[in-house]
Amino acid sequence: NGNTAESLDYEVIENQAYRYEQAQRGKLYVGYQVVVKWFLALLIGIGTGLAAVFINISVENFAGWKFSLTFSIIQRSYFAGFVIYVLINLVLVFSSVYIVTHFAPAAAGSGIPEIKGYLNGLDIPGILLFRTLIGKIFGSIGSVGGGLALGKEGPLVHTGACIASLLGQGGSTKYHLSLRWLQVFKSDRDRRDLVTCGCAAGVAAAFRAPVGGVLFALEEVTSWWRSQLMWRVFFTSAVVAVVVRTAMGWCKSGKCGHFGSGGFIIWDTSDGQEDYSFGELLPMAVIGVIGGLLGALFNQLTLHITYWRRNYLHKNGNRVKIIEACLISVITSAISFGLPLLRKCNPCPESDPECPRPPGMYGNYVNFYCGKDKEYNDLATIFFNTQDDAIRNLFSAKTIHEFSAQSLLTFLVMFYTLAVVTFGTAVPAGQFVPGIMIGSTYGRLVGMFVVNFYKKPNVEEGTYALLGAASFLGGSMRMTVSLCVIMVEITNNLKLLPLIMLVLLISKAVGDAFNEGLYEQQARLRGIPLLESRPKYQMRNMKAKEACGNQKVVSFPRIVKVADVVSILQSNIHNGFPVIDHTRNGETLVIGLVLRSHLLVLLQSKVDFQHSPLPCDPTGVSKSIRHNFSEFVKPVSSKGISIEDIHLSSDDLEMYIDLAPFLNPSPYVVPEDMSLTKVYNLFRQLGLRHIFVVPRASRVVGLITRKDLLIED
Amino acid sequence: NGNTAESLDYEVIENQAYRYEQAQRGKLYVGYQVVVKWFLALLIGIGTGLAAVFINISVENFAGWKFSLTFSIIQRSYFAGFVIYVLINLVLVFSSVYIVTHFAPAAAGSGIPEIKGYLNGLDIPGILLFRTLIGKIFGSIGSVGGGLALGKEGPLVHTGACIASLLGQGGSTKYHLSLRWLQVFKSDRDRRDLVTCGCAAGVAAAFRAPVGGVLFALEEVTSWWRSQLMWRVFFTSAVVAVVVRTAMGWCKSGKCGHFGSGGFIIWDTSDGQEDYSFGELLPMAVIGVIGGLLGALFNQLTLHITYWRRNYLHKNGNRVKIIEACLISVITSAISFGLPLLRKCNPCPESDPECPRPPGMYGNYVNFYCGKDKEYNDLATIFFNTQDDAIRNLFSAKTIHEFSAQSLLTFLVMFYTLAVVTFGTAVPAGQFVPGIMIGSTYGRLVGMFVVNFYKKPNVEEGTYALLGAASFLGGSMRMTVSLCVIMVEITNNLKLLPLIMLVLLISKAVGDAFNEGLYEQQARLRGIPLLESRPKYQMRNMKAKEACGNQKVVSFPRIVKVADVVSILQSNIHNGFPVIDHTRNGETLVIGLVLRSHLLVLLQSKVDFQHSPLPCDPTGVSKSIRHNFSEFVKPVSSKGISIEDIHLSSDDLEMYIDLAPFLNPSPYVVPEDMSLTKVYNLFRQLGLRHIFVVPRASRVVGLITRKDLLIED
Ligand SMILES: Nc1ncnc2c1ncn2[C@@H]1O[C@H](COP(=O)(O)OP(=O)(O)OP(=O)(O)O)[C@@H](O)[C@H]1O
Ligand SMILES: Nc1ncnc2c1ncn2[C@@H]1O[C@H](COP(=O)(O)OP(=O)(O)OP(=O)(O)O)[C@@H](O)[C@H]1O
Ligand SMILES: [Mg+2]
Ligand SMILES: [Mg+2]
Repeated sequence: NGNTAESLDYEVIENQAYRYEQAQRGKLYVGYQVVVKWFLALLIGIGTGLAAVFINISVENFAGWKFSLTFSIIQRSYFAGFVIYVLINLVLVFSSVYIVTHFAPAAAGSGIPEIKGYLNGLDIPGILLFRTLIGKIFGSIGSVGGGLALGKEGPLVHTGACIASLLGQGGSTKYHLSLRWLQVFKSDRDRRDLVTCGCAAGVAAAFRAPVGGVLFALEEVTSWWRSQLMWRVFFTSAVVAVVVRTAMGWCKSGKCGHFGSGGFIIWDTSDGQEDYSFGELLPMAVIGVIGGLLGALFNQLTLHITYWRRNYLHKNGNRVKIIEACLISVITSAISFGLPLLRKCNPCPESDPECPRPPGMYGNYVNFYCGKDKEYNDLATIFFNTQDDAIRNLFSAKTIHEFSAQSLLTFLVMFYTLAVVTFGTAVPAGQFVPGIMIGSTYGRLVGMFVVNFYKKPNVEEGTYALLGAASFLGGSMRMTVSLCVIMVEITNNLKLLPLIMLVLLISKAVGDAFNEGLYEQQARLRGIPLLESRPKYQMRNMKAKEACGNQKVVSFPRIVKVADVVSILQSNIHNGFPVIDHTRNGETLVIGLVLRSHLLVLLQSKVDFQHSPLPCDPTGVSKSIRHNFSEFVKPVSSKGISIEDIHLSSDDLEMYIDLAPFLNPSPYVVPEDMSLTKVYNLFRQLGLRHIFVVPRASRVVGLITRKDLLIED
Repeated sequence: NGNTAESLDYEVIENQAYRYEQAQRGKLYVGYQVVVKWFLALLIGIGTGLAAVFINISVENFAGWKFSLTFSIIQRSYFAGFVIYVLINLVLVFSSVYIVTHFAPAAAGSGIPEIKGYLNGLDIPGILLFRTLIGKIFGSIGSVGGGLALGKEGPLVHTGACIASLLGQGGSTKYHLSLRWLQVFKSDRDRRDLVTCGCAAGVAAAFRAPVGGVLFALEEVTSWWRSQLMWRVFFTSAVVAVVVRTAMGWCKSGKCGHFGSGGFIIWDTSDGQEDYSFGELLPMAVIGVIGGLLGALFNQLTLHITYWRRNYLHKNGNRVKIIEACLISVITSAISFGLPLLRKCNPCPESDPECPRPPGMYGNYVNFYCGKDKEYNDLATIFFNTQDDAIRNLFSAKTIHEFSAQSLLTFLVMFYTLAVVTFGTAVPAGQFVPGIMIGSTYGRLVGMFVVNFYKKPNVEEGTYALLGAASFLGGSMRMTVSLCVIMVEITNNLKLLPLIMLVLLISKAVGDAFNEGLYEQQARLRGIPLLESRPKYQMRNMKAKEACGNQKVVSFPRIVKVADVVSILQSNIHNGFPVIDHTRNGETLVIGLVLRSHLLVLLQSKVDFQHSPLPCDPTGVSKSIRHNFSEFVKPVSSKGISIEDIHLSSDDLEMYIDLAPFLNPSPYVVPEDMSLTKVYNLFRQLGLRHIFVVPRASRVVGLITRKDLLIED
């Protein structure tokens, strides 16, 4: 599978058409491009913000309506309530899985591994299409609204990336929604910048964490970085924050139905624990260790299940996927409704007049199947609730002893199992919120223990829940800085930063001892061969030559017969070919690299075919004007034309093409005995696709140092 | 000047000694290295944190003692108070400038341009020495405590970098403080990582902003980035935050003298303005424009003054520098004491029982030369105060109409002038806090206008002051993301992020229209030739060959006579030379690059001299063991040996050296007609020092794609 993925061309192909186009462009065009860039950043921000608001309002309304209906029914009959609850969830999940399987298969899962792959330089078919965007948005409304043990944050990142990519094309060409004046960015390189913005915007929208979004894009997703881009990415994230904030302000007046304070995950703990004693560091370290262990276990279990699903279950077609998702939905509903029923209610604490809360309202202390009036069901508070509210309850401060250890343990085991099983079904699914749920449960457990043991007035169970959440995410996703900042931003509490960091340090180290991070692992499983930032250790002892094995390089002469081009292209699947010319005195000379996609464009258009096997007029620019640079642009996220699609007459096949104007005249080269570590750094840091391995040079023409590159304008 | 700066060698020189050393190291050594790395990060954090605490406590105590003494004296005689005030300031400033001029000349200024240059790959003599560290710490205590219009934040960044570099050497070898077991990092590359950590730690310590520190290092200072490093940098910053917090907690009980709530710049505005109407965006944009204009003007003025100082004033030696600094100190003292005297006092607002505050205490509403008891002097509140307290007063919320427009304007003009004049004196000097002072003054002015005009209850002058501060820093330093995050962290108010960003966007754009950022400009002026991240536009049309001009490459044969080595090294100042070998059939072959510093080591040690002009035994490893890899390591921040220091007998000169084991066998090469843009990207992104320009290859031995680099462990 990994062998079929093709790479993106981040390199600028400086062929004649490109140079001609560059020369044509005036100063004004550069200014225009800058304006469009920032305008696109603005649009990406607005688009992603609105998508996030739409998803959240929809989910909250579906879920709110579901819960209030169920609550009103269980006043009379618990059984009828149960049936209604299961059915509503089933319908929502079914619609989600139906959309994904029949309409947008690339929308399944979280999408972060795929975006990571894209920004690492891999062309993964279908991930940035309009239909994927639609599938992602509506699919995650269904799956999250349907109460599955998954989140909407990962899908939002993918959504942001899709929006960015579509805007960069000036809309979707397939659905005739394109705007020509936005189409100034046509290379993979420009798209990469936009997708980076979109990705940061997605995180910013999901967590209302603009700084976290930038850091996430920087740390987790992109493989390269340009500091010029940073400001634009940050701008996009801030636009998202403004859009979301405005929308939420607008919703405060009650215009958004059930969408109230909930929806966006902001769990303000700024009124929580301010200070900590050194003695508390031990239980916090314990939380870190638990997080590392449970996170690594989560990765391992999902790895096996995904592997099994892919190789056995999902081989049987869409029907199986649908049945599977529906089954999981029913089981999830049954457990989340049934388990709280078995639980004995607790009496309300005297101090809180809001206990139990009226049915259908948000908050702690739900009265669910309780005998007396002044009682609440702690398991239902977290289980029979939207995940956002459950987390808010788990994080809540000043509510010591709200939850019993037994309830939390039950919830932890059940929810962990559900999250593992749900992972990998054919619905859009994020792992952030489930991770926070799991983590905050055991975090609160530890917190309860600490409260009982340390008996300090300022220890808050909610703070421990927060640390637990960080530890589980760290143990599973192995994110560090960005996760830290995201946790700080969503809890609006800067003071906990060192504690979160401590916990993350430990949980990441523990997790790393067992396996790799969730995203890397999933990428590998899906055949997305990511290049890590660090070269492998054994590369130090390898030479560039060895990496190529004893491959016979397939190359083209400068003037080549059309029939030869066709037969060479048919005979292999390579995408780049060296072009070799002969000098007057018979020596050979590597004059550049020609891409398969460009050759195909030439074969299709036929205008460059010539009868004579002699070079075309080297002085005439006329040649290059036959082709606009944009003709060579590969369509986004699709295969483009293939050699089988091209039909040539036998006359055509007898003609010749001069490749000189169309090749990339200066691909990067390395001498054959350079160590592979260096080659790796070159390849990875510059985001290359092809490197030529050449013999050692016979002489040095010149030497370039810093001083030679300090050219003044 | 720019032509004398040498570069750092970030590249790994894979010569025989290196490879031998690599082969010797077991798994255990790698683990040891990781442990030492993290331990060093911890030490850097603790060291920088303690340095910051020390500087702050000292400054606050000097300043606090100065003000309380002056206040107690002016109860009786304003003139005596004035004299005392001027004298104390003079003594402090004198000690600072004396330390700097006589002991640590590299400690003058903010140090950020130098650190930027270092991390860009330039070796600037003296910036990372122990004496510089000492000069920086004590110098900034004197200059800040002495009330000059400068800050201690820039110097703290430099301090952090020094601490990191010294720790990386295992202490200062000159002062016999070295620890051998810490010395595992000896290449420029490793030092670079440490200095990056130190730099982030410095920002984190200066602003108590760990996230801002990481982003500052990432955006402003480093030219390259490795995502593995990020987590370590963040860890260092968080350690700093913990150290500073612990120290401040300890000081709360009054053990630190005058160091109370002040000192560290944390201006908590979290109780300030929460919301903003769209109508307020216009005045905020105006603040952005003002910031851009004033910032650009600041850069321009300081550019001219620095230029003048360097070429005329400071040519006359240290005595002039000392007199200059003392003069400025007297003027600053006179203005800050005298101007408030001329100002009429305002009656205290009824609502505030703490007006006027008792002399010697912190807070708003100082009674300075007021006739009546219930009056305060608004100009003295900001002028006759430490800068930190002045900013706190300017940022303060719920104090509408505290300042009169006239006072603010007076202050703005005077302080701006003082900041411009003070910039470039021979004392450690940061521009952050003066920038915040200037910005918040006009910000508050705009805020007062808005309060009068809009008459909304929730508009706060303090918020506008904050935005003004951001705008001035943006207009002068042109920092973006990191500045935004730092402002948010120091004010502890996440909600203002979009507003700060808006203001920064505008002020940076306005400033960029006039000139370049403060740091770039100062680096240029000091002959630090920074390579920007973006290649120049005209490089597109240049070839690699053109960049070398028609230089004659100085190269070595493989086996070279010692006399030739000496004469070649004496005849030029280049630092890298190609080594050319001959094959059996008489062809030449470039076999690598040898560094001047390595040649000098060989000449000095003499053990590799041989009598015959034949290659040494290629199979024997014995050769390489003669040299330990660490012998080739250049000492940090010093020139190392030079060819003049080496004395060879005439016998020695007749011998030969085989360079093969000592050269870097695979320097990066580019074909001669590669466009300079690509060469630039290669050079800059990989942090290179030398690139060979070679003729086009005659054939392609192999082709490396992603698949060839996906090697499993
Ligand atoms: N022109 C060529 N001649 C010979 N071998 C090649 C050529 N191009 C690629 N290879 C080799 O073939 C193997 C498969 O590469 P592949 O054909 O997938 O490269 P590509 O399609 O050009 O690049 P990518 O798949 O990354 O887009 C690699 O080991 C590569 O080194
Ligand atoms: N071996 C050499 N032969 C010929 N020209 C050289 C050689 N090395 C450098 N140059 C050229 O000399 C000029 C000055 O370079 P310089 O000698 O300062 O390089 P360096 O000292 O090796 O590198 P740096 O100064 O960046 O440390 C540059 O234009 C460079 O291209
Ligand atoms: Mg391929
Ligand atoms: Mg030089």
